Amino acid sequence: MLTIKLRPREERRLRAGHLWVYSNEIDAGPEFRHIAPGSLCRVHDSRDKPLGIGYVNPKTLLAVRLLSGNVDVQIDRDWFVRRLTTALALRERLYGEPFYRLVYGEGDGLPGLVIDRYGDVLVVQITTAGMEALKTPLIEALHEVFKPRGMLLRNENAARELEGLPQDNETIGNIAEPLDVFEDGLCYPLSLTDGQKTGFFFDQRDNRSRLARYVQGRSVLDVFSYVGAWGLRALRDGAASATCVDSSQTALDVAQASAQRNGLSLETIRGDALATLKALRGEGRQFDVVVVDPPALIKRRKDHEAGLAHYAALNRAAMHLLAADGILVSCSCSHHLSADELQRVLLRESRQIGRRLRLLESGAQGPDHPVHPAIPETRYLKAFYCAASAE
Amino acid sequence: MLTIKLRPREERRLRAGHLWVYSNEIDAGPEFRHIAPGSLCRVHDSRDKPLGIGYVNPKTLLAVRLLSGNVDVQIDRDWFVRRLTTALALRERLYGEPFYRLVYGEGDGLPGLVIDRYGDVLVVQITTAGMEALKTPLIEALHEVFKPRGMLLRNENAARELEGLPQDNETIGNIAEPLDVFEDGLCYPLSLTDGQKTGFFFDQRDNRSRLARYVQGRSVLDVFSYVGAWGLRALRDGAASATCVDSSQTALDVAQASAQRNGLSLETIRGDALATLKALRGEGRQFDVVVVDPPALIKRRKDHEAGLAHYAALNRAAMHLLAADGILVSCSCSHHLSADELQRVLLRESRQIGRRLRLLESGAQGPDHPVHPAIPETRYLKAFYCAASAE
Repeated sequence: MLTIKLRPREERRLRAGHLWVYSNEIDAGPEFRHIAPGSLCRVHDSRDKPLGIGYVNPKTLLAVRLLSGNVDVQIDRDWFVRRLTTALALRERLYGEPFYRLVYGEGDGLPGLVIDRYGDVLVVQITTAGMEALKTPLIEALHEVFKPRGMLLRNENAARELEGLPQDNETIGNIAEPLDVFEDGLCYPLSLTDGQKTGFFFDQRDNRSRLARYVQGRSVLDVFSYVGAWGLRALRDGAASATCVDSSQTALDVAQASAQRNGLSLETIRGDALATLKALRGEGRQFDVVVVDPPALIKRRKDHEAGLAHYAALNRAAMHLLAADGILVSCSCSHHLSADELQRVLLRESRQIGRRLRLLESGAQGPDHPVHPAIPETRYLKAFYCAASAE
Repeated sequence: MLTIKLRPREERRLRAGHLWVYSNEIDAGPEFRHIAPGSLCRVHDSRDKPLGIGYVNPKTLLAVRLLSGNVDVQIDRDWFVRRLTTALALRERLYGEPFYRLVYGEGDGLPGLVIDRYGDVLVVQITTAGMEALKTPLIEALHEVFKPRGMLLRNENAARELEGLPQDNETIGNIAEPLDVFEDGLCYPLSLTDGQKTGFFFDQRDNRSRLARYVQGRSVLDVFSYVGAWGLRALRDGAASATCVDSSQTALDVAQASAQRNGLSLETIRGDALATLKALRGEGRQFDVVVVDPPALIKRRKDHEAGLAHYAALNRAAMHLLAADGILVSCSCSHHLSADELQRVLLRESRQIGRRLRLLESGAQGPDHPVHPAIPETRYLKAFYCAASAE
């Protein structure tokens, strides 16, 4: 096996538990750029002490990801079985039903791999050349541990493009659709092949659970609703009404089908979020609870300023619609927006429109998206529950 | 009314929503130090533009706290009634039963005031000379809004000493003891006059709720248990066993009385936390879930280093007791310890003993302790749920 040697003092991050090596940290000779993308490698520090085993892509800035701190381990089917079994045990402890993120990359010791579980169907995202090279033992291990009816290898994503990997989705076995997704007693009939991302946003599950105590007998507005999981949750938990806003008619159709399936009555509005919030204000409508849960508005660092302004405009428009004792649930899944920044945006906007803001709860992604404590990039979701009172 | 004028550019923090003025930010003449501690005052910027109304103590570094951004408001019984009513409405929305922090200082727009509610008994902490000077309208307002059977004015605290206020507790009306405190279906017969702080730690309620899904059929160790609220919660939610460790026999007696009251069987160990953790390891005992919820180990900035070492030792000792797929719940209520610092401590200690750490959930104080978004000091509680697996 290939050995990658680090430059002096570049081992510190790995010694502290991190799993990544950047290309400029490698003591690379001229042969480095000829290594086949995705090759397994040992990683040594500058004094040739072994740090672990991983895979390397000489064509990407993030050049090496560690798979294990044990250089003697075999990265094979059995290794995947062990990692998958550990990941599964955690989820089975957490959830009564098999609908969750089963593998969350580095957070589960499986860099370059994300798997969502929908009962006996798995949606697999392989995002690195290194994990792609391990596809055969991975798929064998998945068959052994889960015996899935079907697997969808969702390959259309920017990360794969960066790694020089093909973008065509692949299906293994049988993925009958629509697929019934269950979350805390509610059922969503979803299409995995039409939907955004991997079909359902498991990451907000715990944050949605927090809604119950705020919505009894109240009106709820769910902005960027996608298939309506906040709104339907609110209705099930006693809200007087729920209104879902999304730009996708496909998503709203699923929201309505889900409402019907669960015996709930939902209002849906198709439209741009900001324009719809302004139109609702023009109509004099008010809501007791407004949830703003946009897609990542800051995808790259250079979008930061524009994205921040977008978060500000959306949250201000949302606060304008709130009743005097209204609750704003403001979310961001942008890794490039810190919780502190979002909090500052909310404070500033609330003061400009004369609302007294208090932060009641702050949530993150659910525990099926475990954060690797040495890798800040594995933490991305923010959800603030705020009282934004008019006095 | 007195007017306090700020030095040039010192108004920026207040304009951003903060409520505090430090003495060095005040354009103070020689007469400043003769102002009676606790006097109401208007606060003006250096150009004499009004910023709000507050109270002043010329003898403390934190000299002024704003009560309202409206300089024309009367700070009287009616003003307190309005603030208390807003605070109450939030809690009634959140909780089915009247046991919670009713007023959390700045977070509820009432600087210098903390009130815990135990049914028809209120425990009131007035921590500033300014709030003490408003005691009469405050108490009148409390009678009007709550008609409490009894009130305990808990005056023994360091903050009052700093403000030059008397330390003797005061009782108004009738406080029969023990008082039954209810949390999510469990009953704790408590003494308010013997107990630590204000009798019960409401701030961890939500974090305790998260325990349920981790403890089914498992063994739970509750370190710094006080009256056993984590342990009893775990037992009620399906834990196979719970063991409470505390240095106070009085607290453990209440824990046992509470266990009996709720038909649960609890093990209690009296002892120093760290010594007990080490002794349990010596006995070869293991636990599936360990909760470490110490009192503030860093009370002042200068205790930071020693406190950090204490957190490290406790959490390492706790991880040593964990089963292979163990869950560590690590808490800190030290304002001087940031969430990031605690996370780094946990990561370092886990690596040193060969555990793979993942952060599953991170909680803060409950929503009856609302965070003022401009005042970082109002956020203090951290609770990390971590998987600390042995592989």
